[in-house]
Amino acid sequence: MKYSQLFAKTIREAPKDEVSVSAQLLTKGGFVQKLAAGIYTILPLGFLVLEKISAIVREEMDAIGGQELLMPALHPKEVWQESGRWEKLKGAMYQLSDSSKKEFGLGFTHEEVACDLARSRIFSWRDLPQYPYQIQTKFRDEPRPRGGLLRTREFIMKDLYSFSSDQKSLDEFYEKCAVAYTKIFERCGLKTLRTKASGGVFTKELTDEFQVLAKDGEDEIIYCQNCDFSQNREIAKANAGDKCPECGAVLIKSNAIEVGNIFKFGTFYADKMNMFYTDKNGKKQPVYLGSYGVGITRTLGAVAEVCRDEKGIIWPVSIAPYQAQLLAVGNQQSAVSKAEEIYQKLQKAGIEVLYDDRSDATAGEKFADCDLIGIPIRLVVSDKTGDKIEWKNRDFEKTKILSIDEVIKKLKPMDL
Amino acid sequence: MKYSQLFAKTIREAPKDEVSVSAQLLTKGGFVQKLAAGIYTILPLGFLVLEKISAIVREEMDAIGGQELLMPALHPKEVWQESGRWEKLKGAMYQLSDSSKKEFGLGFTHEEVACDLARSRIFSWRDLPQYPYQIQTKFRDEPRPRGGLLRTREFIMKDLYSFSSDQKSLDEFYEKCAVAYTKIFERCGLKTLRTKASGGVFTKELTDEFQVLAKDGEDEIIYCQNCDFSQNREIAKANAGDKCPECGAVLIKSNAIEVGNIFKFGTFYADKMNMFYTDKNGKKQPVYLGSYGVGITRTLGAVAEVCRDEKGIIWPVSIAPYQAQLLAVGNQQSAVSKAEEIYQKLQKAGIEVLYDDRSDATAGEKFADCDLIGIPIRLVVSDKTGDKIEWKNRDFEKTKILSIDEVIKKLKPMDL
Repeated sequence: MKYSQLFAKTIREAPKDEVSVSAQLLTKGGFVQKLAAGIYTILPLGFLVLEKISAIVREEMDAIGGQELLMPALHPKEVWQESGRWEKLKGAMYQLSDSSKKEFGLGFTHEEVACDLARSRIFSWRDLPQYPYQIQTKFRDEPRPRGGLLRTREFIMKDLYSFSSDQKSLDEFYEKCAVAYTKIFERCGLKTLRTKASGGVFTKELTDEFQVLAKDGEDEIIYCQNCDFSQNREIAKANAGDKCPECGAVLIKSNAIEVGNIFKFGTFYADKMNMFYTDKNGKKQPVYLGSYGVGITRTLGAVAEVCRDEKGIIWPVSIAPYQAQLLAVGNQQSAVSKAEEIYQKLQKAGIEVLYDDRSDATAGEKFADCDLIGIPIRLVVSDKTGDKIEWKNRDFEKTKILSIDEVIKKLKPMDL
Repeated sequence: MKYSQLFAKTIREAPKDEVSVSAQLLTKGGFVQKLAAGIYTILPLGFLVLEKISAIVREEMDAIGGQELLMPALHPKEVWQESGRWEKLKGAMYQLSDSSKKEFGLGFTHEEVACDLARSRIFSWRDLPQYPYQIQTKFRDEPRPRGGLLRTREFIMKDLYSFSSDQKSLDEFYEKCAVAYTKIFERCGLKTLRTKASGGVFTKELTDEFQVLAKDGEDEIIYCQNCDFSQNREIAKANAGDKCPECGAVLIKSNAIEVGNIFKFGTFYADKMNMFYTDKNGKKQPVYLGSYGVGITRTLGAVAEVCRDEKGIIWPVSIAPYQAQLLAVGNQQSAVSKAEEIYQKLQKAGIEVLYDDRSDATAGEKFADCDLIGIPIRLVVSDKTGDKIEWKNRDFEKTKILSIDEVIKKLKPMDL
């Protein structure tokens, strides 16, 4: 992609009401644009990151038996009344009436709709287990949106629903999914803690959250650096400085960002929504439900929050919008034609490259934009480099001079 | 994919209120499931079709300079008031208030939001032209949903917005996009007519629709089989049987399905929403807008409507959920292990195959489900075929006996 043709280039100033640093960087870098409080457009550069995160999530969900589908956002009141959550979510779920006064809720989560679907398509033990999932937009009537993509009114989530024949199968899949989640976030460049938490409006049982340690996160967790102990502040009986109940080390407090959560519902929905199957003996049995969420846009926001310096974002290779950013520096026509030639070669080799081809920007502006956008590798062609290219990693100061063939060789294996 | 593991298999009966034949077939075949009138879940088989349609649309939009992004579905009232369409769309757009009484509309279309975005990111002639697009969910308060996926309350659309520096550039892109549209629908297996129509709530100018001839379509068009004359009934002054004003041939009437539409807005939005750029001479100029929609879910519905027989759907190769469906017929263990072996080989060769591995279904049931699902190629392994495979196209009666290598050779080039 030529930078001159990119829709939504970098801008100098983020909106004044955008307090969070990651949101400022994402806005200035051309990744997102705020439409209203807690409501964002994902711009082309941000969209490329979202697609890479989604691809990782799809791979890991497919690997544990997930099947992708797409449920609606517009939910008839009736399915939410069956579970008893229509009233419970008033004020948190957008609820509206159509022109014939029929009431709908905007998808806050999809347990009700997924169970309505399951009871229409799951009949016998032969149809179990099933793990349908979707990557879809959710809506929450959030009174205090904040942190850019971290707490919004409209966001993209991967939600998987597990339908199992008994508690044991549910428990087994739950653990399998927890492992997949840690892997997903690792592949996105995030180290997560698996944190015990309350189920909120979801379930009375304890649930597991996947938390990224971050200074500006909005969740407070108490955890141990020595063992697996990690609890959300809401449920933690221990305090920072106390001894870890599991290993005795000193506990630490952190503001963290929740990027995923998993819930066990057991037979709650089977009972409420009449979701049963016929077992091998012809007996009616309840279907056991679990639900498993990954915040897709929130993962993007969390990466921007924890992978950055004062100049801009530092994208992990796995989810960077492009592998490399190519800059022609200096006004000599020779450098420009050289850069154009290198751009063509990189494209041909299948390397994702953003080429800053502006003739009206100074070298300083190009370098600053490059650091702000945060693509992992910067490639500079100038009068000084001659036939060669200056290679610099976004997060190292050192540069090296390489030939085009060396550059292609180094970038090729990074192609995910 | 093994059929035994597929989420949402075929069912014998479609809901009684589902009048349209294509919707009945899509429901029975395991492609969609109705949640409420005009609101559908796209099941895994349907999702695969949607992904293929979307991939074709993306390729063709990228080829004419489109850049993908994602705009929100939740629109603040204010942007719709600027264009004057908040009042105009009352009753057609879902409008709601949040818990703080702030009003929102659910994305009916995105001209307002796209222009709000453009005025935040387009400043000078250097930033033009731009063609951002998205594949995203739209909502319309449809009083009479019908035809399954043809007229719904929630649907997926590709919408592209062109921002141009003058009328000439707008006109040129409009024609380019029209050509791309015809190509998109052709690649999806649909022959479309480019039909002149009124702009409805969009614009006072005439617009172009892309119509598929179909018996149960809901649009009435008057067209000529001899030349390019084609008009929507709403604006047509001619009647069926009249002479074509362009070539003199007899005009024909048809109920058609609209799968795409393109609009020129000129400077309407520049004026209403203050969307200007600075030209090369430093002068303020209006940005010219065009908008271009493809109904993604509706294209799926249209294909199901026109590509079918009494047994089920006949998917075009380009958008079929799988390239081939493999059936093991007969109870001999040898046929089952042979089928399993062939399934592994096909998978390994990168061929998308749905393998009906049920041991409790009769040959008749398997054949009927195969015709209902409508995957282009049926491969049968039975006691009779021995080491070979019976190959049958969904839309031909004739079968042939082929070796596994021949099957792979024939299917490989179809891999899109």
